Amino acid sequence: CAVLVMWMACGFAMLEAGLVRTKSTTEILAKNISLFAIASVMYLLVGYYIMYSSDGGIFPSLGMLIGSENTLADVTAGGDDAPYYSARADFFFQIVFAGACMSIVSGAVAERMKLWAFLGFAVIMTGFIYPIQGAWSWGGGWLSELGYSDYAGSGIVHMAGAAAALAGVLLLGPRQGKYGANGQINAIPGSNLPLSTLGIFILWMGWFGFNGGSELKISDVASANNVAQVMVNTNLAAAGGLLAAMATARVLFGKTDLTMVLNGALAGLVSITADPLSPSALSAVLIGGVGGIIVVLSVLGLD
Amino acid sequence: CAVLVMWMACGFAMLEAGLVRTKSTTEILAKNISLFAIASVMYLLVGYYIMYSSDGGIFPSLGMLIGSENTLADVTAGGDDAPYYSARADFFFQIVFAGACMSIVSGAVAERMKLWAFLGFAVIMTGFIYPIQGAWSWGGGWLSELGYSDYAGSGIVHMAGAAAALAGVLLLGPRQGKYGANGQINAIPGSNLPLSTLGIFILWMGWFGFNGGSELKISDVASANNVAQVMVNTNLAAAGGLLAAMATARVLFGKTDLTMVLNGALAGLVSITADPLSPSALSAVLIGGVGGIIVVLSVLGLD
Amino acid sequence: CAVLVMWMACGFAMLEAGLVRTKSTTEILAKNISLFAIASVMYLLVGYYIMYSSDGGIFPSLGMLIGSENTLADVTAGGDDAPYYSARADFFFQIVFAGACMSIVSGAVAERMKLWAFLGFAVIMTGFIYPIQGAWSWGGGWLSELGYSDYAGSGIVHMAGAAAALAGVLLLGPRQGKYGANGQINAIPGSNLPLSTLGIFILWMGWFGFNGGSELKISDVASANNVAQVMVNTNLAAAGGLLAAMATARVLFGKTDLTMVLNGALAGLVSITADPLSPSALSAVLIGGVGGIIVVLSVLGLD
Repeated sequence: CAVLVMWMACGFAMLEAGLVRTKSTTEILAKNISLFAIASVMYLLVGYYIMYSSDGGIFPSLGMLIGSENTLADVTAGGDDAPYYSARADFFFQIVFAGACMSIVSGAVAERMKLWAFLGFAVIMTGFIYPIQGAWSWGGGWLSELGYSDYAGSGIVHMAGAAAALAGVLLLGPRQGKYGANGQINAIPGSNLPLSTLGIFILWMGWFGFNGGSELKISDVASANNVAQVMVNTNLAAAGGLLAAMATARVLFGKTDLTMVLNGALAGLVSITADPLSPSALSAVLIGGVGGIIVVLSVLGLD
Repeated sequence: CAVLVMWMACGFAMLEAGLVRTKSTTEILAKNISLFAIASVMYLLVGYYIMYSSDGGIFPSLGMLIGSENTLADVTAGGDDAPYYSARADFFFQIVFAGACMSIVSGAVAERMKLWAFLGFAVIMTGFIYPIQGAWSWGGGWLSELGYSDYAGSGIVHMAGAAAALAGVLLLGPRQGKYGANGQINAIPGSNLPLSTLGIFILWMGWFGFNGGSELKISDVASANNVAQVMVNTNLAAAGGLLAAMATARVLFGKTDLTMVLNGALAGLVSITADPLSPSALSAVLIGGVGGIIVVLSVLGLD
Repeated sequence: CAVLVMWMACGFAMLEAGLVRTKSTTEILAKNISLFAIASVMYLLVGYYIMYSSDGGIFPSLGMLIGSENTLADVTAGGDDAPYYSARADFFFQIVFAGACMSIVSGAVAERMKLWAFLGFAVIMTGFIYPIQGAWSWGGGWLSELGYSDYAGSGIVHMAGAAAALAGVLLLGPRQGKYGANGQINAIPGSNLPLSTLGIFILWMGWFGFNGGSELKISDVASANNVAQVMVNTNLAAAGGLLAAMATARVLFGKTDLTMVLNGALAGLVSITADPLSPSALSAVLIGGVGGIIVVLSVLGLD
């Protein structure tokens, strides 16, 4: 499943590379592949320690760093009833979560931030911001003590990514050329829609790993039924978001817009992530659909 | 495995987007990603009920729709000996089958059908036509009573897709610009062959899920040997089809044609799907090879 | 896992298609997809027999060829303690190894070798050269008797591929247009960097199958911990290689070069493959980083 989630980094890279202007393609590709590397190293060096050290007072990150044996006890799920669950598997999963969080920022500040400034921000984000707020809930911090529980990381991954993205957008302002001298709005069409479509397919596929893998973490191996339900709901939410965005865009703009269709599917996937397990199948379609409508309306509002 | 099969929808999208003319790329991408969403929703709303309700008189589709628990008994394989097999897992698998069936149509009517007409047809195809004829065999209908058994859906998925595609092609006629005013034939080369090659690689990979997953459905978990055989045969048939098409095209046209190479691999994959388990490895190469030769000859005949 | 490794063939195809000049794209795509088909068939016909027949004097390849049942005993790992391990699964894994080996050659001789000469070489390479030297170690030949052991095929796959590639490059000379009439060097920039980036992401993902699958082969099913460690180390080596190459290129050339970033990730992956299990996580970053620095320096030296 972690392999599928890592695959999402590729999906974000392709989606964003296809949606920006041709001159920015190389830079956005460099950003997206580098941020995953930075997330891996920073999370190893400091992030993992920050996020989980409160659990037991041990230094799991240090043991991981210099230990050649995989001797760490299970730090989160633990116990004899999860024999195949190792600290390193969790670590790998967390790396891709941190990377996914940063990918959200990457899309928001596309074409607005220089490469090395972005990479510096990635160091801070994946090494400190993401782990610190992650520790609040998953690491046994104050949020989890308040009873807050997070399923597939809707709060942790998406909220942290979105908050950082919003801060970045407010700081950086609109993309150059987005608004004309007299305040008129210039549409910036995607330069390579096949690439963006490929990106959405990859994200759709990777999301199964994101949501399905979250299920595996918090329950025993026999709960394959739940995984199936999570998969079905994830898929239906994406479908609902896609169709709702397509129909909304058709009604509002009078034509079918592939970019809206792609955004709708993504919105559906994001919408269901807060709780992909409990809703019935029909609810999943509706949850995704609401996400799809909101994304079209917000683009309309922004433009 | 269902994730791999879903991945095939992406493969078809990339293959077709690369083979059509540049002006049609956006439309074919919109068609391919939308049809998967439509298949998901329509199969949930009506298709699943039509296809399997004859099994037990229950309303599994309704339970899926409004039930928040995964309480359905196994509807097809069932029994205590398959504890990890849930109705929802089957449902997810069926959705991607219905989508794959519609993808076949999509390729055939590329550049010949308006977007919304195509989407309307997708509603009917995945909501009614596919489930009704699927019920004839997998749902316990008259075909299965006559002793008809289908392995990986060669009859159900491909025949239904191909029949609908043929009907569409007969109805719609050739692509505009395919035949000149005096009846001469104009070749329509692919506009983006890297994309098409990526599509074939994805389909090749997804086919392992398609054929391998079919094996898992009808046998117990221990039959990993059979899965390995199915994988090997699937791979060898694709290889045989590719090489046979390459050699045939080389002999007939005097040059190597990448489009033919790609079509040959696809033909090999289709050829083996009727029975990927029983043939020996050498037979698999030959079965794929015959498919590869036929596809080149048929393109020759059509042109 | 073999599916992931097969996916690497796609990664190499995309990487190389993006890095060559536009006029060569079609040819390199044809080479990369054909070589996998040739590897499949040749390894079936002769390679598998050459590589493993010394084990027991039986003719496993012949049984595979004409036997419709999967009756072969486990040829390598064997025994009752590995009940899910079949000869055909191993065979499938070996095919993709042979294909990966040939892919390395393909990249090296890109734009320097005619299609059919390349395919002829692929026949010899995957049917004879790779299996013969593979038999020296994995087949129980003189190398394994001397105590040589190979983990994920660093020696077998990469060394064989690299030796053949070096021979090819020496024989064929530089790419046309690489050196001017007066000995000056012309840079040949990649024509499609999104495609190359996609290729690297695919290879990164496929490498998990390559290294992780190797672990599964030589140990019992319970060693999921080791697999997790291999995954983490593989990922960190790629990250280290990418970042080291990025920084080195930045210092030496004064700008960030996406091609170098991609090559660095690949160099990190290759570096860790010799032993992805024993190093600690920090060592994995450093091993990958050294690979990343070497690749930038070698490109500098060559240019």
